[in-house]
Amino acid sequence: MFYIIGLGLCDEKDITVRGLEAVKSCSRIYLEAYTSILMVDKSRLEAFYEKPLILADRDMVETESDEILRGADKENVGLLVVGDPFGATTHADIILRARALKIPVRVIHNASIMNAVGACGLQLYNFGQTVSLVFFTDTWKPDSFYDKIKENADLDMHTLILLDIKVKEQNEENLARGRKIYEPPRYMSIPQAVSQLLEIESLRQSEILVPEKTLAIGLSRVGGDESQQKIVSGTLADLATQPAEVFGEPLHSLVIVGKKLHHLEVEYAQQYAVNATNWRNVARDVYGCALDD
Amino acid sequence: MFYIIGLGLCDEKDITVRGLEAVKSCSRIYLEAYTSILMVDKSRLEAFYEKPLILADRDMVETESDEILRGADKENVGLLVVGDPFGATTHADIILRARALKIPVRVIHNASIMNAVGACGLQLYNFGQTVSLVFFTDTWKPDSFYDKIKENADLDMHTLILLDIKVKEQNEENLARGRKIYEPPRYMSIPQAVSQLLEIESLRQSEILVPEKTLAIGLSRVGGDESQQKIVSGTLADLATQPAEVFGEPLHSLVIVGKKLHHLEVEYAQQYAVNATNWRNVARDVYGCALDD
Repeated sequence: MFYIIGLGLCDEKDITVRGLEAVKSCSRIYLEAYTSILMVDKSRLEAFYEKPLILADRDMVETESDEILRGADKENVGLLVVGDPFGATTHADIILRARALKIPVRVIHNASIMNAVGACGLQLYNFGQTVSLVFFTDTWKPDSFYDKIKENADLDMHTLILLDIKVKEQNEENLARGRKIYEPPRYMSIPQAVSQLLEIESLRQSEILVPEKTLAIGLSRVGGDESQQKIVSGTLADLATQPAEVFGEPLHSLVIVGKKLHHLEVEYAQQYAVNATNWRNVARDVYGCALDD
Repeated sequence: MFYIIGLGLCDEKDITVRGLEAVKSCSRIYLEAYTSILMVDKSRLEAFYEKPLILADRDMVETESDEILRGADKENVGLLVVGDPFGATTHADIILRARALKIPVRVIHNASIMNAVGACGLQLYNFGQTVSLVFFTDTWKPDSFYDKIKENADLDMHTLILLDIKVKEQNEENLARGRKIYEPPRYMSIPQAVSQLLEIESLRQSEILVPEKTLAIGLSRVGGDESQQKIVSGTLADLATQPAEVFGEPLHSLVIVGKKLHHLEVEYAQQYAVNATNWRNVARDVYGCALDD
């Protein structure tokens, strides 16, 4: 059997009981290391499982799937994935390959940011399409995310924005010389994300991302305990001016709040507001949300 | 501490290790019984936890939250929720009540249909807003779902449709006489859902739900093993004409496939097709998906 096992969002204890049983039954286990980042080291997972893990980066999962699947028709092999196996990255290709090789597959689901974003108090029902935001460079500022946020905003829907991470990147010199030396990982912060959003807004001027009028919620380490999980709500202007440490450790996500907003959602997210009065005022005056005051 | 613990999708083993530890630490544990239905009995959960569970129906969670929260400032109390605590139903109200009572709260996330729907092979990125479909009666056929599916379809997005369940319902006579006698639970089947969709399409005629041209995927018991999980793909006409047992046991969900469709998504869902040739032909000819043949 080939198991693809979601690890959930935080640490070694977010695996399900079923997932842990599967891990224990595997003779070989891979840990996918590229689509997202757990909050703990591989060594802590290995200690908890009492098994070694083989790191599988993007190259390996994409180009060496037959090596990962080797022997899975006779014994159990596992691939551990942060979040859910069908979260931000689908693992359709390796599953199709397994099926072509007549290897039985079992997917073990878990929480991913795609549903745990509900922790900010907004109804998952009212989210539109999800958007990725990549690091801008001086010469490359892809802005298709803006059209998607606008499509959602036009329907009064919320937008979940997944912020870029850069792991295992080479600088130009090492890339040119073919040296496998990698830069330290980089994670986009909430203020940087807001800055990029506003940069594109200033070019497009559709007024869907207005510093003082658009509500947003930053999330990090959703599902962690109080020392880890940070949720911060406010206008884009509020979020842009906070020091980065307010938003906690990476990974970060950002929600742009749509106009379909219930007063209970406003009350709930208010507990995370940079400025609670401003949060309520904008919800009432700009979003038209019926609040008691 | 007040714990709200997601149970995931299938059975007692889908709880996370963290969730199980929390359950073990609780002096009182409630099982929320209305928003969704696990595949196993309460007794099996109790045997696994080695603890009794108190059933909490909708009335109780909404109107007796103080009773649920009683003592949670001094000892641990848990509320078990099928799926994720912020899935189709947010538990914002009871969490806000806990905070008002100065009771610390910890949410333990898990998979919900809102992310596990990715098991059908469609990218979660490309889902628009989620829709609920309720049982029609002769006199009550609420059709606002149609506008939402159309909004998604106009953006080429997929739509997840959650199908109605009726539990703890009284018939008119028992209701009138105030007798707390309840009807057996009812679950909407995929063919019934498709029939209701087409009934509204025939009134509205926006051609977003066309029997021979619209692709859809039925899902049941996502995350279960091969004897439980059923995924069935086809045109709406294909799905409407299958016997109900093809779709497995409830709960069911239905995905309306949007035009933003990658060939890998078509390949993946093809393994579940009622008629693989027809599935591919419609994907290519109607959806404009670039396929090899």
